[in-house]
Amino acid sequence: MDAIEVIRAKRDRGELSTAQIDWVIDAYTRGEVADEQMSALAMAILLNGMNRREIADWTQAMIRSGERMDWSALDRPTADKHSTGGVGDKITLPLAPLVAACGAYVPQLSGRGLGHTGGTLDKLESVPGWRASLSNAEMLDVLRSAGAVVCAAGSGLAPADKKLYALRDVTGTVESIPLIASSIMSKKIAEGTGSLVLDVKVGSGAFMKTVTEARELAETMVALGTDAGVRTVALLTAMDRPLGRAVGNALEVAESVEVLAGGGPADVVELTVRLAREMLEAAGIAAGKDPEKALEDGSAMDAWRRMISAQGGDPDALLPRAAETMTVEVPASGVLTRLDAYAVGLAAWRLGAGRARKEDPVSFGAGIELHAKPGDLVRAGQPLMTLHADETSRFERALEALEGGYAVGDATEEQLPLVIDRITA
Amino acid sequence: MDAIEVIRAKRDRGELSTAQIDWVIDAYTRGEVADEQMSALAMAILLNGMNRREIADWTQAMIRSGERMDWSALDRPTADKHSTGGVGDKITLPLAPLVAACGAYVPQLSGRGLGHTGGTLDKLESVPGWRASLSNAEMLDVLRSAGAVVCAAGSGLAPADKKLYALRDVTGTVESIPLIASSIMSKKIAEGTGSLVLDVKVGSGAFMKTVTEARELAETMVALGTDAGVRTVALLTAMDRPLGRAVGNALEVAESVEVLAGGGPADVVELTVRLAREMLEAAGIAAGKDPEKALEDGSAMDAWRRMISAQGGDPDALLPRAAETMTVEVPASGVLTRLDAYAVGLAAWRLGAGRARKEDPVSFGAGIELHAKPGDLVRAGQPLMTLHADETSRFERALEALEGGYAVGDATEEQLPLVIDRITA
Repeated sequence: MDAIEVIRAKRDRGELSTAQIDWVIDAYTRGEVADEQMSALAMAILLNGMNRREIADWTQAMIRSGERMDWSALDRPTADKHSTGGVGDKITLPLAPLVAACGAYVPQLSGRGLGHTGGTLDKLESVPGWRASLSNAEMLDVLRSAGAVVCAAGSGLAPADKKLYALRDVTGTVESIPLIASSIMSKKIAEGTGSLVLDVKVGSGAFMKTVTEARELAETMVALGTDAGVRTVALLTAMDRPLGRAVGNALEVAESVEVLAGGGPADVVELTVRLAREMLEAAGIAAGKDPEKALEDGSAMDAWRRMISAQGGDPDALLPRAAETMTVEVPASGVLTRLDAYAVGLAAWRLGAGRARKEDPVSFGAGIELHAKPGDLVRAGQPLMTLHADETSRFERALEALEGGYAVGDATEEQLPLVIDRITA
Repeated sequence: MDAIEVIRAKRDRGELSTAQIDWVIDAYTRGEVADEQMSALAMAILLNGMNRREIADWTQAMIRSGERMDWSALDRPTADKHSTGGVGDKITLPLAPLVAACGAYVPQLSGRGLGHTGGTLDKLESVPGWRASLSNAEMLDVLRSAGAVVCAAGSGLAPADKKLYALRDVTGTVESIPLIASSIMSKKIAEGTGSLVLDVKVGSGAFMKTVTEARELAETMVALGTDAGVRTVALLTAMDRPLGRAVGNALEVAESVEVLAGGGPADVVELTVRLAREMLEAAGIAAGKDPEKALEDGSAMDAWRRMISAQGGDPDALLPRAAETMTVEVPASGVLTRLDAYAVGLAAWRLGAGRARKEDPVSFGAGIELHAKPGDLVRAGQPLMTLHADETSRFERALEALEGGYAVGDATEEQLPLVIDRITA
């Protein structure tokens, strides 16, 4: 077989055979298909698409490029959640221990942030001592002792996806539903979870800007998971405004701890509980402990403390805070009609919460506290948000990002419902 | 500016600005845009196209990546011809000295063959002593002394095109009319010719299989040349059957010498004379010596001998011959209804006349002599063609290539006229 033949087939709107897909992914992983050939193929896929069978084969080939984890030795079912990324989306932090407290094991391989959406590992690393890198044996130990583990994927997991993702990132070939779906699902299937709930975000702060695109991505991923024997369900959820009132690494950890303590913002609590119920149902243990109860009785908080401690973190340590703050005031009295997720995400990123390049560090303390959410009545001059940064020089460009990102008026603009739709196989 | 932004613009069906095109070609030539980025852009261009302004900018940017030759010091107009490549297409060999004999200078930068179509430089190199590489000063000397020069393009001419062509060759991005047109025209414009006749081949043995595609390519190239101040005209000509009766390097040189001696196959003579008249008209000296006359009176042959000698070749030397021959017989009596150009080209290539990889040598003696052409009455058992190769082991695969490539019947199948159309600005 040869790379040019495979590229031409897709370029000319053909269907790639299973043998062609297996060969090209394997040869690319081994370096026999060159980066310039794979990027041409990725562009042809982006523009001409792949059908369900091709996407399934592509995903399976990426899984086979590395190891596949196996939790069958555990005595309880496994469940995981994946979010496509949003602004203020700290849901994994309260959710993983909550689901563990309700009786499932949560083996989550997670990632770092790039661009305006934060990364779960960056958030957890703001807890002093906590470490993201675990061996497979350590991962099993944490799972057994805490019920949940959130850590970085090792280099042995879907190496074809790692290599391809880095290539797509620099060649304008990220925005392809077949390639996005197979990238996410190859890692989640290789991770070995028995059931999976996908939180597909929709809106300005999300990768998918419209419900139509988000539904297509969700349906594609649910089909891939189901075909691979993972019980998979997806929710389409709102990302036109930020989730909760905290955006930034340590700020989001603090908000997550509030939720685990039985408090926290209503939207974060609602989405956490809803996702927990979906995970427990997918895992076949919906009849067990109710997630609301586990938040009230402290058992979710206990699981959080065990999970953090088991990975070297101190759940009682003070979280990092940024040296400088600046208050943004409400410009006029009325109803906060809009607070745009992308504007807030970009501002937080410019304050230091995110990174521009993979090798950059993040500031744990940087970010934004929101003092009002869309629909709230506000008075001119009251604090709308507090910006946190390590240097005052960062405020100016953050304020630029926020320009036009919020508005006060007479009536609330239409917002997406928090949970827009539910997609099953 | 950055490569991802340019790739995304074309991926999303946008029009690239002049600044974007200038930047990306320059940065690619300097190595700042990576091969994997340029191949993704090439695939996006192949699938989403470029408009006339974009193609003109792309061509100009490739010209500016290197030197532009200048023949304005010469005392007569310059004219050149470019063929998109075919089987048995030796026309440059008699044409360049013929046009020189009629009063124009012919400064032709030419190429080597790859695949089933031969290369002019490979053919000329079968003349003992002849060399393809000349400095610019040597090129001018040959032009002045012989009136015509055919040589390899130096590395300073359109280096962006050289780099991009090598990349397209391995990434399935050759078959794009904007990229083909800009590649050809950047070299021809940089070559400095004042007028240019394009011979765009159509049919099984050509790159363009249909008149529609060929016309689009021709119109694109004529517009590019005209916009750049080169008087440009194109002919669409038949390549459903081979040109002439010889296919292969030395075999084609011998046939070209027959034409220069006033003989040769009718189709080769007709196309050579027609192209010569087009070149002389484009150069503004149509009222000079008539090409038919220059073939009859020996002045074209004199120019050929001067041209070959000036580049180190011996016009009287015996041409290389292959060690082995094999005769293919006519299978039945009747009319030769079909002799497919691609089948004959592929067979000649397998006999050793062409190369599979750029670095391979060619066999000068290998190729095919045709003893009949479509429309000819033939008798079962008479020789249809003679295969020439350095090793008998090559005959079997050549015969396989010829299977189904010719047919004898009651009436001639429809053929393309030799000259199908003429395209002007």
